[in-house]
Amino acid sequence: MSAEIICVGTEILLGDILNSNSQFLARELADLGIPHYYQTVVGDNPTRLKQILAIASDRSEIIILTGGLGPTPDDLTTETLADFFGVPMEENLDVLEDITRKFAERGRQMTPSNHKQALIPKGAAILPNPSGTAPGIIWHPRAGLTIMTFPGVPSEMHLMWEETAVPYLKSLGWGKQIIYSHTLRFWGIGESALAEKVAPFFHLANPTVAPYASKGEVRLRVSARAPSQAEAQQLIQPVVEQLIQIAGTDYFGANTDTLSSVVGQLLKDANQTISVAESCTGGGISSMLTNIPGSSDYFLGGVISYHDSVKTSLLGVKASLLEKWGAVSKPVAKQMAGGVRSLLGTSWGLSITGIAGPGGGTEAKPVGLVYIGLAKPDGKVECFKYQLGKDRSRDAIRHASVCNALDRLRRRLEGSRE
Amino acid sequence: MSAEIICVGTEILLGDILNSNSQFLARELADLGIPHYYQTVVGDNPTRLKQILAIASDRSEIIILTGGLGPTPDDLTTETLADFFGVPMEENLDVLEDITRKFAERGRQMTPSNHKQALIPKGAAILPNPSGTAPGIIWHPRAGLTIMTFPGVPSEMHLMWEETAVPYLKSLGWGKQIIYSHTLRFWGIGESALAEKVAPFFHLANPTVAPYASKGEVRLRVSARAPSQAEAQQLIQPVVEQLIQIAGTDYFGANTDTLSSVVGQLLKDANQTISVAESCTGGGISSMLTNIPGSSDYFLGGVISYHDSVKTSLLGVKASLLEKWGAVSKPVAKQMAGGVRSLLGTSWGLSITGIAGPGGGTEAKPVGLVYIGLAKPDGKVECFKYQLGKDRSRDAIRHASVCNALDRLRRRLEGSRE
Repeated sequence: MSAEIICVGTEILLGDILNSNSQFLARELADLGIPHYYQTVVGDNPTRLKQILAIASDRSEIIILTGGLGPTPDDLTTETLADFFGVPMEENLDVLEDITRKFAERGRQMTPSNHKQALIPKGAAILPNPSGTAPGIIWHPRAGLTIMTFPGVPSEMHLMWEETAVPYLKSLGWGKQIIYSHTLRFWGIGESALAEKVAPFFHLANPTVAPYASKGEVRLRVSARAPSQAEAQQLIQPVVEQLIQIAGTDYFGANTDTLSSVVGQLLKDANQTISVAESCTGGGISSMLTNIPGSSDYFLGGVISYHDSVKTSLLGVKASLLEKWGAVSKPVAKQMAGGVRSLLGTSWGLSITGIAGPGGGTEAKPVGLVYIGLAKPDGKVECFKYQLGKDRSRDAIRHASVCNALDRLRRRLEGSRE
Repeated sequence: MSAEIICVGTEILLGDILNSNSQFLARELADLGIPHYYQTVVGDNPTRLKQILAIASDRSEIIILTGGLGPTPDDLTTETLADFFGVPMEENLDVLEDITRKFAERGRQMTPSNHKQALIPKGAAILPNPSGTAPGIIWHPRAGLTIMTFPGVPSEMHLMWEETAVPYLKSLGWGKQIIYSHTLRFWGIGESALAEKVAPFFHLANPTVAPYASKGEVRLRVSARAPSQAEAQQLIQPVVEQLIQIAGTDYFGANTDTLSSVVGQLLKDANQTISVAESCTGGGISSMLTNIPGSSDYFLGGVISYHDSVKTSLLGVKASLLEKWGAVSKPVAKQMAGGVRSLLGTSWGLSITGIAGPGGGTEAKPVGLVYIGLAKPDGKVECFKYQLGKDRSRDAIRHASVCNALDRLRRRLEGSRE
C-alpha cells in the first residue's frame, strides 16, 4: 500500500512557482507512516494528465492531486478524473450553495464559471474547502483505489488536509505506525569521510540511517517506524548514541540546533561572554550569533575591521605587523582577537581575516586563505589557518569561514583540544 | 521533441528538502524554448528509478536527472542508468585526477568511496563540475535520446547547467527562438500597490509583464520571445522605461542588482565611504554590504553595539540618553550613526536599533519597532522610524530592517528627498 502525489499546473512546468505543495504532502505522509515513492508534475493538459493517472493508478493505492480545481477554463483536474474513470459529472447542490454564500459574504459577483466548481464525479464525496471556493473530492473510483484532490493554493490545501484528509486517513487505519526522525549534525568532517566511519549503520532496517550534506555541514538522519513517538525514540536512542560516540567532536548538535545556538548555550552555561572582530566575513559571525533569540545574554558586540585603519585604531593591531605580514596573517588574526576581547571586556574574542575573492588573491595568499583568531578567557590567543578551495564562490568561502570560526569556539567551549 | 526532469532523492520524498532544482531547470528549459511536460521525483531506489526511466525514455527525447551522484552507497543514479541501458561502467581517469586534485587543494583525505564518482557509463561524455567533486554525464544511450545528469546540490548544478549544458543544447539548435527576460526590482512598495499602478501592462502579449514578491522585495519580470536577444531587448526596452517611470523612486535596480550592489556603485561614483553601527541586525548590514566584491573601496567597517556598554564606549552614545529614551529610540539611533561616522572617519554613517523579537517587546515599544539613523556627509543626521508587523519572525524583521536601512541610504545617494 502506498500513496503518490500528482501536482497539476503549467505554471510549475514553466518554473513560475516553486512546488512547495509536494514537500508539505511528503512530510505529512511520512508522519502518518504512509509509504510514498513517486511525485509527478504535469501541466493543465487532459491527455497528459490521463497518461499520468494510468501510470499512478497502476502502482499506487492512494493518489493525491493538487491544482486545477479553479474556475478558469484551464482548470481541468476534476473533469479529467471523471473522464479517465468513465464516470459522469453531477452538480452538487451543497457545494453550489457554499460557493454562492462565500461570494455574497465577500461582496463579489459570482460568475457562470464558478458554477463549474460545483460539478463533481458521480459517487465522489466532497473534501470541504473552508477558506476558498474550490472544494476537493475523496473518491473511490474502483476497489482499492482512493483519489483525493486539493486546490493548488498552499494555505487552502493545508487547511483541507488537516481538517478532513488526516482524520479520514486515520479512520482507514493510517497513523498507527508513525515515522519519527532524529537528525545529527556535524561540522569539520566531509560527507564521504563520515559515511565511511559509520558505514555499517546504513544497512539497518529500523531505524534507518542516511547521510546528507549541505553547505559544508553533514547530517545523519536516523528514522524509525513505530506505533508511537516514544517507541520510535526507543529504537533510535541506542543508534544515536553509537553514532555520536563514533563521530566524536565533529558532532555538534541535533535537529534544530545550529552552530550558533550550540555556542550560545555553551556560553550561557559557562556564564561567559564573547565579542567578535571580522574582516572578510564582514559581520557574518555577528549576524549568525545574533540570529539566536536571547543572544544579548552573551554576545556584547563586535568590530567590523574591513579597512586596515580600523584594525589599528579600534583593535590595536600594530601597523608594523600589518606591514610585515599583511592583513591576512596569523599575527594579525591573533591581535584582532585579543584586541576585541580587551576593547569590549568579554571572556572570549573571536576574529577572522581572509581573502573571500573573487579578486585579491596572490600566489602566496590565494583566494580562500583564512585565519581565525581565538582569544581565550585566560588571555591566551590561538590561531587556526584554513585554505578553502579556490573554486568556491565568495558566498561559500564567507559562509564556511563563519562556520569554521564558530566551530573552533564550540570545540574550546566543550573542552576539546582538537 | 521534449525534455523531462527526474529528481532522485529519498530526502525529497520524505519532505526534508524543497525541490528547487525542478523550478530552476523548468525556467531554463522555457528560456531555451525546449518543451517540457513532466517532472518526476523518485527515491534512491534502483528498481523504481528504472521504472521511471522506462516511462521517461518512452515519451521524451531529453532526460535531465539531478541527485544521486555523491560518494555514499545510496547514490545510485549513474550505475542505475548504465544498468538500465545495459552498458558497463568505466573509470574515467580525467575525473579521478580532478577529484584527487580537489581533495588535495582542500587539504582533505580522499576516501575509496570517492573513487566511485569517477565511474561513468561507457560511451558517455563528462559534464564537468567546476565547484564540486561529482561530475555529471551527457550521454546518448541510443539514437534520439539524450541523458544529462547533475548533482542535487543547487549551486553546483546551476554552474554546470550554465557552463556546459546550455552551450551543448544551443549547439543542438535549441534557443533559436529565445525567451529573454528583464527583471525590475523595487523596494518600499507592496506587491498589490505596485500591481495596481502598472495593471494595464499585465495584458501585454509580447513582452509579458508578471509581478513577483519575495521577502519584501517586489519584482516585475518583463519577458519577450524573439529570434535574438537584441530583438527581444527592442521589444522590452519601451515597456521597461514606462514601468520605471511609473514606479518612481521605489525602483532600485534590474536583474542581478541588489540594494547593496546599487548602494555600492553609488558610493563609488560619488567617491564616498560608509561605516555602520548595528544593534538588532547584529552585523546584517555590514554582511550584506561586504557580500559585494570590491566593497573595500567604500566600506571601511563598523561596530556591532549589541550591548549598551558598546554604544557608550565606542559610539559615544550618552548614558543619559539611553536612560531617558531607551536603546531603541530616535536620539540613540542618531547618536549611533553620528558616532560611527566620526569614529571611522567616513562620509556616511548608518545605524540601526530595534526590537527583533520574539521577546523584548512592550506596549510602548512592540516587537518590530526599528529606528534607522543616517549621518550624512554634511554632518547632519536623519532618523527613520519603522513599525514592522508583530507577526513577522525574528529573521524577517532583521532582513527587512537591513533592506530598509540600505534603501534609505540609496534614496539619499540618488538625491531623492523621499
